[in-house]
Amino acid sequence: GAVHGDGDDLTVAEIANDPNTTPWTDPTFTGTTWPLNEVRLLTPFLPPKIVCIGRNYAEHAEEFGNAVPDAPILFLKPNTAVIGPGAEIKLPADSTRVDFEAELAVVIGSGGRDIPAERALSSVLGYTIANDVTARDQQEADGQWTRAKGHDTFCPLGPWIETVFDPSDVAIRSTLDGQPRQDSRTSLMINDVPALIEYVSAVMTLRPLDIILTGTPAGVGPMTPGQTVSITIEGLGTLTNPVGRR
Amino acid sequence: GAVHGDGDDLTVAEIANDPNTTPWTDPTFTGTTWPLNEVRLLTPFLPPKIVCIGRNYAEHAEEFGNAVPDAPILFLKPNTAVIGPGAEIKLPADSTRVDFEAELAVVIGSGGRDIPAERALSSVLGYTIANDVTARDQQEADGQWTRAKGHDTFCPLGPWIETVFDPSDVAIRSTLDGQPRQDSRTSLMINDVPALIEYVSAVMTLRPLDIILTGTPAGVGPMTPGQTVSITIEGLGTLTNPVGRR
Repeated sequence: GAVHGDGDDLTVAEIANDPNTTPWTDPTFTGTTWPLNEVRLLTPFLPPKIVCIGRNYAEHAEEFGNAVPDAPILFLKPNTAVIGPGAEIKLPADSTRVDFEAELAVVIGSGGRDIPAERALSSVLGYTIANDVTARDQQEADGQWTRAKGHDTFCPLGPWIETVFDPSDVAIRSTLDGQPRQDSRTSLMINDVPALIEYVSAVMTLRPLDIILTGTPAGVGPMTPGQTVSITIEGLGTLTNPVGRR
Repeated sequence: GAVHGDGDDLTVAEIANDPNTTPWTDPTFTGTTWPLNEVRLLTPFLPPKIVCIGRNYAEHAEEFGNAVPDAPILFLKPNTAVIGPGAEIKLPADSTRVDFEAELAVVIGSGGRDIPAERALSSVLGYTIANDVTARDQQEADGQWTRAKGHDTFCPLGPWIETVFDPSDVAIRSTLDGQPRQDSRTSLMINDVPALIEYVSAVMTLRPLDIILTGTPAGVGPMTPGQTVSITIEGLGTLTNPVGRR
């Protein structure tokens, strides 16, 4: 792997490959390593398709007065919304409330169609963190969530892909300017990762590097320019992004 | 261009380029031509992003009892739904009603961000026909339209890209087993093509070969296995697809 160490002593190995090819499948390392805090990480990859799950934690559905759905609610974010760690989330002028939403992102490896839950995890390349940034007012106004969740910069992704990871029961937390906001566990998902892969792949073929955002727990809230949002998932690191204006 | 002639006497010029590269931008022709009815056309291209507009013809909004929206309703289809002319639309077993929806598709050329309506048409590569196939029961059940409109084979596209075309007032028609269904004109769009490009590009960057589906007129209806659906847009040809089961 490219990331080594623990806590504040993380180092990253320099990858020789052209980032426009596919270094994540079989990277070549230059042999040089750097302390993580001395480099700027780029978006780990550009997903062809970003499939998202609405209301997959009961307490989050309830915080907006919504019922827990009978089946997963699917929606899509455009990949033009993706930004990397440290890049600025740009709030559009035509929204009065833009929220952070901490989510576990499943990165598809082999992918396919009609993948049963029992072998779903073997179709996964790895996991990363996503922020499903949402213009709450536009979400309510439009009914369809595409505009509210589709603005450029509304899908921070990273800090890297972790390939050895059990998604079933880890802590997922967010902070705004260092103050705790969301604090939950992935075990509280209504539909777990294997169930989501089965459900989504029964509708649409999953291709390599497609991602599934698995829903956000309770505690979401608005961001304002100048603030910084961080999402930490146990075992995956922390995704931090400053907030600015378009 | 690759397509020549009129009416039943259309011929197509064989393109030498690898279809996985970009023959649409600067094709090399082999010098061989074929009668159109002796070849099978493939999907003209794979759009990175399929941005769709809901309820953009007043009479279609009304046929399902919906109000005409104040602003365009945006949604996305995954590009895994794309099939070419003649390919089978496969009805999923878990839907009881799947409808055809004839739509003009705008193929983005240069693209960009914050494109004003006044120069929107210069960002367009060309136009083609799309069928925004929709599982009507799933659309109602889910609220979000992604599953209903995102099944594999639910985005027939073609028959080719027409680069010299005025989208402002042409006939758009569909037939089911040869029987007339939709019959309207693009001049009846609530938001015209330049307005849609301005609206969408104010939210998300448009990239080359992204497409915008501009909404469907009244007269949509269900398809059953064994039927054939055809969509004709004046100046763009006809997109025909048989209907089968998954």
